[in-house]
Amino acid sequence: MAKIPDEAKKVFEGVIFDVYQWQQKMFDGTAQTFERIKRVNTAEMIVTQGDLILIQEEQQPDREPFLTFPGGRIENDEDPLAAAKRELLEETGYACDRWSLYREVMPIVKIDWTVYLFVGQDARWVQDPHLDAGEKISVRWVTLDEFLDLADSGKLTYFLEQFRTEFVRAKYHAPSREALRQKLFTASP
Amino acid sequence: MAKIPDEAKKVFEGVIFDVYQWQQKMFDGTAQTFERIKRVNTAEMIVTQGDLILIQEEQQPDREPFLTFPGGRIENDEDPLAAAKRELLEETGYACDRWSLYREVMPIVKIDWTVYLFVGQDARWVQDPHLDAGEKISVRWVTLDEFLDLADSGKLTYFLEQFRTEFVRAKYHAPSREALRQKLFTASP
Repeated sequence: MAKIPDEAKKVFEGVIFDVYQWQQKMFDGTAQTFERIKRVNTAEMIVTQGDLILIQEEQQPDREPFLTFPGGRIENDEDPLAAAKRELLEETGYACDRWSLYREVMPIVKIDWTVYLFVGQDARWVQDPHLDAGEKISVRWVTLDEFLDLADSGKLTYFLEQFRTEFVRAKYHAPSREALRQKLFTASP
Repeated sequence: MAKIPDEAKKVFEGVIFDVYQWQQKMFDGTAQTFERIKRVNTAEMIVTQGDLILIQEEQQPDREPFLTFPGGRIENDEDPLAAAKRELLEETGYACDRWSLYREVMPIVKIDWTVYLFVGQDARWVQDPHLDAGEKISVRWVTLDEFLDLADSGKLTYFLEQFRTEFVRAKYHAPSREALRQKLFTASP
């Protein structure tokens, strides 16, 4: 719903954000300047090993330390799953052979920004992480119940709130918890 | 956490969005251009009358019709609660005498944007709505259970996902539902 119309003009190009404007016809026939942002798309991953989930303890230069899923920006023309695999290897040194798309969301009105959440199963350690100058990351493994507690309490802060809503539902609604458990730990076909 | 540092420079000024950049020192001593967006702050309102909650059925020129709370942009230097009262009167023709702040959230990393959610109680009809050329709005009153179902199913689409998480928790967790019921319907001191 936040897609930018074809006739819109790019009025600013930044590092992360581009700004577009167009003349939008109103209900009374007048026109107004409408404005939308295009943000680089991002991918996040729930990575599992047995019945455990990978959580990152992360620091960035301009923020307090935080807990998060692995994830990052999708480069120009990069396939979203390829970006997820690349980020996982760079940030944690792990790789997964079995992947599925959990959800694809355009979370914010007026911003053209898609977030992909992938599930990667059977994680195995491959190599030392290769971190950017702006990242400090360590890995922690938690159970599903520990994960749902982190999501419910808000301590897992960085992932998209749209996903968090589902994890809070799974904490308090047994059928939702079971559906989530199967998505994360049961072998895909 | 998404606050823009004082030394940042405004590199673009738009209708809704301004763009800021600064040189951020990395962990290894190098510097990179960091970028943040400043978006006009917004206020949303949960408005009640007896044990009912006000929901808007709304149309805008560039979107499908949707269900939402009343709300809108906070004008330059306008007090957030004053903006909430103004928007409520403009959009619905209702006014409330009893107000409280439910939550104040900065929802998106890398975007300086604050959303205020107010609760207005004892709504009374004052006058016909005064709608912008880009709005078509009608009002519907729902019970708390109907409201929680709308939030859980995703049919109430426009309000902030951070708030939706709380409403989903209230649907499935009785103590959270009772705390919400008191916030919405019990007289403030």
